[in-house]
Amino acid sequence: MSNPFFKNQGPILISEILKSLKINFDGIDLNQKVIDIKDLYNAKDNHITFFHSAKYNAIAKCTNASFCITTESLKNELPKNCIPLIVDNVLVSVSKLTAKFYPESIDDNFDDTVIDITETKFADTVKFGKNILIGKNVSIGSNCSIGHNTIIEKNIIIGENCSIGSNVIIRNSIIKNNVRILDNCIIGKHGFGFFPIKDKNLRYPHVGIVLIEDNCEIGCGATIDRGSMSDTIIGKNTYLDNQIHIAHNVKIGENSIIAGQVGIAGSSVIGNNVKIGGQAGISGHLKIGNNVEIGGGSGVIRDIPDDTKVMGYPAKNIREFLRDNK
Amino acid sequence: MSNPFFKNQGPILISEILKSLKINFDGIDLNQKVIDIKDLYNAKDNHITFFHSAKYNAIAKCTNASFCITTESLKNELPKNCIPLIVDNVLVSVSKLTAKFYPESIDDNFDDTVIDITETKFADTVKFGKNILIGKNVSIGSNCSIGHNTIIEKNIIIGENCSIGSNVIIRNSIIKNNVRILDNCIIGKHGFGFFPIKDKNLRYPHVGIVLIEDNCEIGCGATIDRGSMSDTIIGKNTYLDNQIHIAHNVKIGENSIIAGQVGIAGSSVIGNNVKIGGQAGISGHLKIGNNVEIGGGSGVIRDIPDDTKVMGYPAKNIREFLRDNK
Amino acid sequence: MSNPFFKNQGPILISEILKSLKINFDGIDLNQKVIDIKDLYNAKDNHITFFHSAKYNAIAKCTNASFCITTESLKNELPKNCIPLIVDNVLVSVSKLTAKFYPESIDDNFDDTVIDITETKFADTVKFGKNILIGKNVSIGSNCSIGHNTIIEKNIIIGENCSIGSNVIIRNSIIKNNVRILDNCIIGKHGFGFFPIKDKNLRYPHVGIVLIEDNCEIGCGATIDRGSMSDTIIGKNTYLDNQIHIAHNVKIGENSIIAGQVGIAGSSVIGNNVKIGGQAGISGHLKIGNNVEIGGGSGVIRDIPDDTKVMGYPAKNIREFLRDNK
Repeated sequence: MSNPFFKNQGPILISEILKSLKINFDGIDLNQKVIDIKDLYNAKDNHITFFHSAKYNAIAKCTNASFCITTESLKNELPKNCIPLIVDNVLVSVSKLTAKFYPESIDDNFDDTVIDITETKFADTVKFGKNILIGKNVSIGSNCSIGHNTIIEKNIIIGENCSIGSNVIIRNSIIKNNVRILDNCIIGKHGFGFFPIKDKNLRYPHVGIVLIEDNCEIGCGATIDRGSMSDTIIGKNTYLDNQIHIAHNVKIGENSIIAGQVGIAGSSVIGNNVKIGGQAGISGHLKIGNNVEIGGGSGVIRDIPDDTKVMGYPAKNIREFLRDNK
Repeated sequence: MSNPFFKNQGPILISEILKSLKINFDGIDLNQKVIDIKDLYNAKDNHITFFHSAKYNAIAKCTNASFCITTESLKNELPKNCIPLIVDNVLVSVSKLTAKFYPESIDDNFDDTVIDITETKFADTVKFGKNILIGKNVSIGSNCSIGHNTIIEKNIIIGENCSIGSNVIIRNSIIKNNVRILDNCIIGKHGFGFFPIKDKNLRYPHVGIVLIEDNCEIGCGATIDRGSMSDTIIGKNTYLDNQIHIAHNVKIGENSIIAGQVGIAGSSVIGNNVKIGGQAGISGHLKIGNNVEIGGGSGVIRDIPDDTKVMGYPAKNIREFLRDNK
Repeated sequence: MSNPFFKNQGPILISEILKSLKINFDGIDLNQKVIDIKDLYNAKDNHITFFHSAKYNAIAKCTNASFCITTESLKNELPKNCIPLIVDNVLVSVSKLTAKFYPESIDDNFDDTVIDITETKFADTVKFGKNILIGKNVSIGSNCSIGHNTIIEKNIIIGENCSIGSNVIIRNSIIKNNVRILDNCIIGKHGFGFFPIKDKNLRYPHVGIVLIEDNCEIGCGATIDRGSMSDTIIGKNTYLDNQIHIAHNVKIGENSIIAGQVGIAGSSVIGNNVKIGGQAGISGHLKIGNNVEIGGGSGVIRDIPDDTKVMGYPAKNIREFLRDNK
């Protein structure tokens, strides 16, 4: 599926890519065109990908990409069809190149295509409050309600029977059916991803989206950031309480319940039927299994297997926690 | 007092109630009318109530309700005047029946009765900013100030000398005198109460209100949820800092001070002259005494008696905490 | 520099000051005029200052103030040029007197000078969304962008190349160049400072500002309170994630990175190149050195020297934390 939110500026000549990455390369057809930048798994012929950690060796061996930004030490893992482009810092190079393909993904200014809902076709099909702004090319299903001062930015897709509160801002997101988003939520802004550089950090482009599946409820004042290269996903019938922060690339399963003021750091994956108590925090890049219960106030810094109850900081088995704190 | 926020659809025929709860019952006048649903303590003649835990035996024995949704094992605690209606899950049945009496309490969409303040009588009596929306039947005392983009929903009562900030949303709430509510607060939405059901949770109706007593200050970005069957109350001269979350049914006493990012879970009761440090969390259904001090970052998971200083996670006596962490 | 945000009502006759502080004083020229109230360090001739703790003995000895609100036990530290005014509670007296010099600093109602941006000179020089309100005497540099429903209050100074999101409120602040402030931030409201008094607390005036230096990013829903007597400062190229609370008088250095939901209590000073993980909390009046790393969820209750990694609650050396929690 082509990304509905960020226009791909490709194809880009490989000569231009090499130049922007400051790579000298002989024995290559410089007029070759690169269509898109994708991760190792999703890249196809005439795409460029990246490979920065031995953790991904198995996927790297099978990539269909024509080019891969990588390092001297990893390049031999790539298949013959994929030409390695050697750089000092893979992720910085990827960041620069992604911004070249998707310049809109780094900017994140307000949407200047919005008009008042009363001037749109939704004036007849949506129940709406005052001062609502709708971007171009938005789609909203039947039987939806949108509160006052809410902003639905361009290309957003909202399903049927959804209720969007007041003062909500939604961008770069797809909302399925029967979803309720409460007041003051900000859904789909770029994640907190950048490369620290003295005096002027380098922002990382975020070309992912936020996907909210059927029957979810998102509490007041939530911030759900969109993904960088993959998507941020809230699974079916998952409920979030107030003031929750979900960082970029997080995936939450179905039928989960997350209490107030919880924070989930970037790229963590949460299973189905998970219960998380108020103010708990989950570090980045973790895997939380199915049917897990995390006590309020916990700080989770390690993966948690299925069917486990944990509590504490750092979170440990709840029996152990209660025994240690009698 | 009749609830000013949710219209009671009663009286409802007992035959209809039995049908909706899927109860077969012989030897009862099916044309009897039930006026309202209330808790054991507040229910009167021709009301229906509920009783789901032996904890409430003493109150149950004295209820004035005519009917009570309860279980086989509890029914014998009820007085003769009260007919027990036996169900599998008391709270789910109560939820369904409350929604029948108060259908508006479950919906929580934006208030579509609002108009711009310049078109209301408050244009002459209130100091106001731009783009302010006021619902029908709102009452605002003398010498009040309301900031830009704020929404005061229908039936709200605000006392004298109050200052409401910008981007504030108030619904289902009563605000007394000399109260200051800062920017971006959301006061009075439904609580995070529902019954987890695979694929589609059952929302719990919230017919309570938020009551903010004289001289309070509510910091920026606070969320204070209204009660389910009882009210959420902030006592006189209590000050809340920024980004605080107060869940449904919480009651906070007078002259208390609550620092930034604190969260208080549902139905906990906080005493007078209580000080709570930043980011502390208090679990649900707890009783925190008078003159208690809770250190910043604490996680309180047990009741705290009067005149106690605690800190830690789980919170313990502060002397013990400091000794253990020298 | 004269404060651009709060008009000084001075000079005030010393006779009037003595009367308002309920001080009887003989042998003084009651017609003497006091120009301003400042801290010990910044006060000059014909200024009044205050001195409430032996911690400040060294600075007190050198103050240039003509008058000083202080206590019997501290007064002998003051130089001859400075007349001590003895009170029971120094800070309460300072609070009352500051409110006399700067009455606007205690009120904090919405700015009633704002008009729609389309009616201002910025209609031609700024890229702007809908429903934006701009106060009088605002300055905005070239190449800036302001999102929908945002409020820029009077006297605000914004540099070049800044991007301000939607639903933002900025007051009493100076924003330098290349700063990005995301949606729903509230910058520059008064801090959570007051004197607890039964039934009616005494609010502390906040005459400081918020200063955000070049190249900063402030995440969604941040609250950054202005200083009381000094300023709240975010140093160059420091990035804040979503839902962060920065209390009054906090100073953060350059090139620091602060993850989501962090809270920093009043008057703490954070160094350069500091990294703070998500949901960490830092108590008030602490000094965090340069190049410090604070793990997510930590509760910092003591100063941290340069070049240290800490984690835990209370935060300790990270090696110790990991060893204790194997």
